[in-house]
Amino acid sequence: MSRWIEVGQRITHKNDEVAADLRRRFTVAGVKVCSLISAPGSGKTAWLTRTLAELKVREQRAATLVGDLESDCDARRLAQAGFPVRQIQTHGICHLEAAMIEEFCLGWDLSELDYLFIENVGNLVCPLAFDLGQSQKILMISTPEGEDKPLKYPQAVAWAELVLVTKMDLAEAVGFDSSALVENIRRVNPDIPILFTSARSGLGMDEWLKQL
Amino acid sequence: MSRWIEVGQRITHKNDEVAADLRRRFTVAGVKVCSLISAPGSGKTAWLTRTLAELKVREQRAATLVGDLESDCDARRLAQAGFPVRQIQTHGICHLEAAMIEEFCLGWDLSELDYLFIENVGNLVCPLAFDLGQSQKILMISTPEGEDKPLKYPQAVAWAELVLVTKMDLAEAVGFDSSALVENIRRVNPDIPILFTSARSGLGMDEWLKQL
Repeated sequence: MSRWIEVGQRITHKNDEVAADLRRRFTVAGVKVCSLISAPGSGKTAWLTRTLAELKVREQRAATLVGDLESDCDARRLAQAGFPVRQIQTHGICHLEAAMIEEFCLGWDLSELDYLFIENVGNLVCPLAFDLGQSQKILMISTPEGEDKPLKYPQAVAWAELVLVTKMDLAEAVGFDSSALVENIRRVNPDIPILFTSARSGLGMDEWLKQL
Repeated sequence: MSRWIEVGQRITHKNDEVAADLRRRFTVAGVKVCSLISAPGSGKTAWLTRTLAELKVREQRAATLVGDLESDCDARRLAQAGFPVRQIQTHGICHLEAAMIEEFCLGWDLSELDYLFIENVGNLVCPLAFDLGQSQKILMISTPEGEDKPLKYPQAVAWAELVLVTKMDLAEAVGFDSSALVENIRRVNPDIPILFTSARSGLGMDEWLKQL
């Protein structure tokens, strides 16, 4: 076990240097960078697709980088709003790294952007160790996953600066107990803001855009 | 990237040796070992809890090892049927390894068991690289996760010997297209058996127990 962690720490140290450089460039360019993690299928892409459409209406400028092991399904969905989108195919790697962000931002004029969204590979563990130079760390938990997720993945809750509870339109069908989820989140991260959202109904979109 | 993969390969080579030894012991003991992976919140524990209750009625003997980063929520749910259950807390490790299975089986008389279920940490990537000495590899995909999961996580579909589609009771609410999911699974793994299940309604339980 300790061998695994040691090796990981050496790799993430190098990642941190690249991320620090990215953060400097993002800051100079004045772009807000939101890094999103969640379990696979929690609705990151659906929420972002709706967010991008809303930003378009508001004449904001955004770009998105999206990570998946394979396929460009997500990038095609995210491109609907007409903003720049690039798919990062990790081919077996379980998380995004700062070097990938650096590579896939190439050619984009960051100073032309208000927002850059980074949608990580669906994974509640490995992405936590890799700083991507973001300004805000966002964790999504969908209602069908159950209220106990924060107890089983406390590191993800501790990492986050904002929790979006997604798929609230399914809350009744799955017997979701929102106060139990909030209690479990607050046990790990007492002061974190929590927004209840639905990409289908638009619930929470105004509040989300306001805090952006 | 390549450095990450190289290091991983050295670690998994050691794991494979332990797993091969475990497999010999499981075979000698005559216990069928089912290894389950899925995204977090896909319903592994709910399905196993119901499975264990059904096996109890049929006077079969089973035990379960369940992995999570923290907490013993799952072990407490799985213990309801009265069979032996042990919680493996990985404390930050994103997957189970053969050495953990070896350690947590200690004291169990394997020859007294018909089935051993191993519920991995919720993760569709990292567990694939770690053989646990199992006899059957099972992938669960829940209906709210969407039909495109096999395209985005093809390695998980290729790894599996059986796919359980879980939470079929939510299929209508989430607008789930089962033929699209089947098509996407078959693109990666053309001959794999696929069972449609619901831990709530019991859909698919008879077929699942039959193939066990």
